[in-house]
Amino acid sequence: MGFRPLHDRVLVRRIEADEKTTGGIIIPDTAKEKPQEGEIVAVGTGARSDEGKVTPLDVKAGDKILFGKWSGTEVKIDGEDLIIMKESDILGIVG
Amino acid sequence: MGFRPLHDRVLVRRIEADEKTTGGIIIPDTAKEKPQEGEIVAVGTGARSDEGKVTPLDVKAGDKILFGKWSGTEVKIDGEDLIIMKESDILGIVG
Amino acid sequence: MGFRPLHDRVLVRRIEADEKTTGGIIIPDTAKEKPQEGEIVAVGTGARSDEGKVTPLDVKAGDKILFGKWSGTEVKIDGEDLIIMKESDILGIVG
Amino acid sequence: MGFRPLHDRVLVRRIEADEKTTGGIIIPDTAKEKPQEGEIVAVGTGARSDEGKVTPLDVKAGDKILFGKWSGTEVKIDGEDLIIMKESDILGIVG
Amino acid sequence: MGFRPLHDRVLVRRIEADEKTTGGIIIPDTAKEKPQEGEIVAVGTGARSDEGKVTPLDVKAGDKILFGKWSGTEVKIDGEDLIIMKESDILGIVG
Amino acid sequence: MGFRPLHDRVLVRRIEADEKTTGGIIIPDTAKEKPQEGEIVAVGTGARSDEGKVTPLDVKAGDKILFGKWSGTEVKIDGEDLIIMKESDILGIVG
Amino acid sequence: MGFRPLHDRVLVRRIEADEKTTGGIIIPDTAKEKPQEGEIVAVGTGARSDEGKVTPLDVKAGDKILFGKWSGTEVKIDGEDLIIMKESDILGIVG
Repeated sequence: MGFRPLHDRVLVRRIEADEKTTGGIIIPDTAKEKPQEGEIVAVGTGARSDEGKVTPLDVKAGDKILFGKWSGTEVKIDGEDLIIMKESDILGIVG
Repeated sequence: MGFRPLHDRVLVRRIEADEKTTGGIIIPDTAKEKPQEGEIVAVGTGARSDEGKVTPLDVKAGDKILFGKWSGTEVKIDGEDLIIMKESDILGIVG
Repeated sequence: MGFRPLHDRVLVRRIEADEKTTGGIIIPDTAKEKPQEGEIVAVGTGARSDEGKVTPLDVKAGDKILFGKWSGTEVKIDGEDLIIMKESDILGIVG
Repeated sequence: MGFRPLHDRVLVRRIEADEKTTGGIIIPDTAKEKPQEGEIVAVGTGARSDEGKVTPLDVKAGDKILFGKWSGTEVKIDGEDLIIMKESDILGIVG
Repeated sequence: MGFRPLHDRVLVRRIEADEKTTGGIIIPDTAKEKPQEGEIVAVGTGARSDEGKVTPLDVKAGDKILFGKWSGTEVKIDGEDLIIMKESDILGIVG
Repeated sequence: MGFRPLHDRVLVRRIEADEKTTGGIIIPDTAKEKPQEGEIVAVGTGARSDEGKVTPLDVKAGDKILFGKWSGTEVKIDGEDLIIMKESDILGIVG
Repeated sequence: MGFRPLHDRVLVRRIEADEKTTGGIIIPDTAKEKPQEGEIVAVGTGARSDEGKVTPLDVKAGDKILFGKWSGTEVKIDGEDLIIMKESDILGIVG
């Protein structure tokens, strides 16, 4: 079953800290508010201005990203816990 | 009796959790603030900018959507409980 | 005696619940904050942008509308209780 | 002695309830927050956008208006109590 | 010693109530929050939009103005108490 | 060691009250919130609009200015206490 | 492992006070809220306007900057503590 985020929203799969390889981004458990790593699952068609101009997003499905711990809305799709957030909640792309 | 939402508003029929098929989006009862699923019943003519430019909506009648639990205004039309919300309250399209 | 709403304002006559026909929109007394039904009595010339561009309203005198219970300002004109509100307070058009 | 309101401001003379003729707008004493009636005494040259474009006002000296009870700033000019308000505080034109 | 207000600011000399002639604007002591009268001493080059466009002010040195009692910032220049305020704090021009 | 303020920021050296000459701007100690005098040490390249247009500042190094007592951020550069503020925090130019 | 900040964000390595040379910027321990010095590690592609226009940043990797103590979000990349902030959080460029 698919899910298409609307406008400038993206669907993100959280990457748990214990899945990360050596040398990667490590966010210690003691720092609960630090950014978290995730993978883009799907992206919207783009931000839409007041005048109707659509600007495609700068991230794409498969991108590894960092995002603020409290960003977005949690949702369960096909039994998997995912997060819907706006592109502006993404801090940057890893790798 | 019809109802035409104004501008960038949409009319939504809530899809209750127990109506959903296996493999679909399941929102457990324990997560009351999680997004909810709905179906678009009618859409406005589009968002209108300060300069009067109308941008048609990206959703249409029949679309299955996810929306925030607290979005919109509840209304009863022809005996049915529906919700009027803005397109920007829609998180994405299912299916 | 006439009254011309300014800019993007409209003059609305509230339609009480007990006046509505079967099959229409019924707002139960128990839901005090639910939208209310009304009829447009007069409309302003349109929304005016910062640059002075006037955009005519999408509603006209005679339209049946739904609006939020707390929208607008109550006024008595020629002995009748009416409401002055902005077009953006209107949820949609009935019928 | 004259007074020229600046930009999108207008100078208003309040019309007391007891001066109004039968069939006019009557605002009962019990409704202290209801709109009040007034007459435009003078108007500014118009609203000025960030880019310097001036848009003349839609009201003119002599217009009878309704305005919110708490709008504007009271001032005494040549011994008369008047109110300086912005055009956007005006609800509409009477008559 | 000169002082040039920046952008859309003006330098104002307050006109005390007891200096005003008969028939002028009189603000009783009992109304402490009422507008005050002043004279423009100097004006900035104009409001500057985000895009860099400069719009000259609508007031000039010598203009008698009304302004809100709490507008602007008090400053002492060459031993004289003056007020620096934005043009948008000015209610209108007297005379 | 140099310091280049970014965008519409300026670097300011505070001029203490006891350094000022007779007839200049005097801010009494009893008025702690009154504006202060300073000298521009360096300026940024200009304000940058959302669309990327750069508007050079209206002040330059060497200008004597008045600024609000609580404006900007204090910093010590090469052992000297200076202030970084935005041009919009400057009230006007002295002299 | 690389990290590309999104849009108008930059990745910054904090320069601790004890690493600074004589004559440089010294922020005493007693002033905890004063700006801090850092070095740009990576920059985003630029600020993106509502209409989709990208404006490249005015800072580049290697620039020494001053930034507010509480700016940005701390993150650990490849075992190193870094900060992700927006270009608008940067006060200026040192050197």
